[in-house]
Parts: sequence; structure tokens; C-alpha cells
Amino acid sequence: MKQVLNVFKIGGGVLDDEAQLHAFVREFGQVAGRKILVHGGGKGASQMLQDLGIQPQMVQGRRITDAATLDVVTMFYAGKTNKQLVAALQSAGTNALGLSGADGNVIRAIKRPVKDIDYGFVGDLPADSVDAGLLGTLLEAGLTPVLCAITHDGQGQLLNTNADTIASTVARALAARYEVELHFCFEKDGVLADINDEASVIPEIQPAQYAQLKAEGVIAAGMIPKLDNAFAALEAGVEKVVIEHALKINQLVKTVLCRS
Amino acid sequence: MKQVLNVFKIGGGVLDDEAQLHAFVREFGQVAGRKILVHGGGKGASQMLQDLGIQPQMVQGRRITDAATLDVVTMFYAGKTNKQLVAALQSAGTNALGLSGADGNVIRAIKRPVKDIDYGFVGDLPADSVDAGLLGTLLEAGLTPVLCAITHDGQGQLLNTNADTIASTVARALAARYEVELHFCFEKDGVLADINDEASVIPEIQPAQYAQLKAEGVIAAGMIPKLDNAFAALEAGVEKVVIEHALKINQLVKTVLCRS
Repeated sequence: MKQVLNVFKIGGGVLDDEAQLHAFVREFGQVAGRKILVHGGGKGASQMLQDLGIQPQMVQGRRITDAATLDVVTMFYAGKTNKQLVAALQSAGTNALGLSGADGNVIRAIKRPVKDIDYGFVGDLPADSVDAGLLGTLLEAGLTPVLCAITHDGQGQLLNTNADTIASTVARALAARYEVELHFCFEKDGVLADINDEASVIPEIQPAQYAQLKAEGVIAAGMIPKLDNAFAALEAGVEKVVIEHALKINQLVKTVLCRS
Repeated sequence: MKQVLNVFKIGGGVLDDEAQLHAFVREFGQVAGRKILVHGGGKGASQMLQDLGIQPQMVQGRRITDAATLDVVTMFYAGKTNKQLVAALQSAGTNALGLSGADGNVIRAIKRPVKDIDYGFVGDLPADSVDAGLLGTLLEAGLTPVLCAITHDGQGQLLNTNADTIASTVARALAARYEVELHFCFEKDGVLADINDEASVIPEIQPAQYAQLKAEGVIAAGMIPKLDNAFAALEAGVEKVVIEHALKINQLVKTVLCRS
């Protein structure tokens, strides 16, 4: 029987507020067994770009990662956020080990091809981009990998990569070895049936229901890429995907996405 | 018989110049077998402190690591320098994995006690601060740990730590498992008999000779802490300490320090 592996993704909100971050770290420490944490950047990186006088580069309304921006987000995500998280996790008894995709070549990305827009130093993840063997070695040594949203191309170039994509690609890559549960943590208790009612969490969604909820316009537009991504992970062998509040991971309120 | 482990320490100069950094990475890739790289910060961090308007805090002529400074050096060392080095090493065929001391609790430091001066968030390393087991696991998995000069106290606090001290403490901690050779790389070809003659490299120094060279004033004042540190590492079981040029690690010109 395969062991359970919990992959958690956290983003802004919890990363931007020290008290929330420590509350999350305590909750995360109570999750038993093998686990991986993937984190985005939070608002701090944008503030720092501003403090350094680096103007946001926008093309057709999309943010571009130029060389100066990549430098700052690498420092912020892989340096500050990752190391502060790891130190906090260590203090709470989780043997965390921070990684970018370059470390141990654990996530090798492809610089996004230029079509209409040149996104700059942004990395996309092909299906075989994750070294599941290395993550398995670390997990079996009792370590908790903490992945930031920086990858590399194997040719010496670091790349900025979406943290949701990293979480689902890692979850999929490990599905052959573990019974993987993928947790997208955010600032709401789950997927809401009514965007104006925080208590309207849908406890479980199956693919047919999801199609119907989308057709009915129940799912908020911003949630659709996240949920499409989540159902694709289920299709690819991930056992369960959970959408939940970052500070309530050990509570029952959440949305569980199921394969059928 | 114990396997050989080479521990290299690099600092400013090679880190501040991209062409030199890539030249070092190529040379380092040619060093066979198990190896660890420890790096300092270079001048970039000081420039960034200036760009962010963070004034250097000095007490009695010594630089203090206050909270804002720690933030920046963590970003710079653990984020930018470490990840750029790791990505460059990967591209040159070395399976590098970057670590701060917090990662996997690999180096646990003690915040420097306040005596005459409060140095702020600076970490000193007791003899048992390094997790040799974890470094051994990574080395035996074919990885090359790349350690930056940031450690932690195990209570959630990151600490700025001298990179020479990290290199020698790591070398000492691994001396029971490996035949360790510790390499301090800098911008000269070795210890010079005549500070004004770059060709006057002393090929080998034994402890008795070192005492004599110090007494005669031959050793430059700035080299004394480095060499004291190096001979202490030899006393503690490190097999060999080498002082050499960062871009000539595979050449014969160097100073080898021997136990006797």
C-alpha cells in the first residue's frame, strides 16, 4: 500500500502577515506523515521592487519578468520567504528543507516561448520536469521539502514559475510513489456556492458537478484556472485535491474535489 | 578506507564578477568525487543595502547585523548568490543543492552573546552545530551541497555567520566520515613569503614553520585569523588545508598546510 503524501500550497495573505504565517506553521506541524510545502511570493516582493525603483514591466496588461525583476523575486522568494518559512518550521518541530527548482535539479522548466507576448524569464513546466526520486529521498529521510516558485532551465537561467503550477506538477509527479493529497490553501474556507456567503462552502465537487457549476456561473471566474488545474491533477493520478483556508487545514470545513 | 571529501570556500572577488564566477564553476566541475561549496557574500549585498537606504550600523568600528540588514543579507546570500551559483553549477554538470543552515537544520548556530559589543543577528558555531549525517546523505546521493553564510538558532531566528567559520566547522564535522581536504580560495595563489611578490607562494607550511613565520612577521596580518582557523581544523581531524587562487584550484600552485 502506498504511503500518504500531503502537498500544501500557500500564497499571499498568510505569507504577508507574520502572525498568520506562524499560525499556519503551527497547524502545518500537526499534519502527520510525509508532506511538502509550496509557497508563492506575497506582496512583499512587489513592495521591494518599488523600493528599489524597478518599474513593473507590463505588456498587454500582463506583468513581464525582466532581468531586474527576476533578481528581486529570486532574492525574495528563494531568500527571504523560503528561509524565514524554513526557520519557523524548524522552530515548530518540522524538519523543513528549502528548495528552488535549481537545487538538485528538482524542477527543470522551459522558458515560456514567445508568441503574442514575451513574458521574459518565466518558466513553464513540462510533465517530466520534476525529479520525483530526489523528493522521495528527502521525504524518506524525514525531511519536509519547502519549494519556492523559482525554477531553472538547466542551462544556468533561473525562471519565475507559478506556485499553483509547481504544486500540481509536483503532486502529479509523486502520484506513482505516494497516495497524494494536494491542498490549495487560501483565504476562504473552500469553494463557495455563493460568493457573498462565506458559509456556503461546497463540501465535495465531482467532475460532472464542476461542469454544471461552471455552466451555471456559480464558480467565481478567478477560481476557474485553479479548479481546472486541480481536476487535471486528479485525472493524472493525484488521489484528492482540497481547497481550504490556510489557517484551518486541520478543521473539517473545506472543499474536496474527487475523481468521480 | 575513508573516501575523500573536498570542501571549498569562495568569497568576494570571484562572486562579484560574473566571468570569474563562471570560470570557477567550470574548474569546480572538474574536481572529482564528493565535494561541498561554501560561499560568502561579495560586494553586491553592501550595494543593495545602500540602494535600499539602509545605513550600515557600526559600533566601535565593527559592523552590526540589525534586523533590516539581516533581511537583505538573507535575500542576497541565500536567494540571489546561492541560487545563481546552484543554477550555474547545474548547467556545468554539478548536481548542486543550495542550503542555509536552517535547511534540514544542517547548521544550528548560537546568537553571539553580548559582551562589549552587541553584534546583532550574528551566529557563532559551537563544535556540534553541523548535522554531518544529513550532509553525508546528500553527498552519498550524488549531490553537492552549496552552503551560504546564513544559519539559524533553531528557535526561528536566522543568523549571519562568517563563511570561513562555516567551511572549517563543516570540514571538522565531516572528518570522522571522510578524508577531508579544506580549500580556502581567494585572489592570490597561496600564502606569500613576500607580500609584494605574487610568485613567492610558500608550497607547504607545517605548524612549527607557521609559528616561526608569524614570529618573523612574514605572514600578512589579514591572513592570520584564516591560518589560525585552518591549523585548528587540522588539529581537529581535517586531513589537509589548502590556500589557493579561486581560478587555479586544478593547478599545482598553492599553499598546503600540514599537520606535521
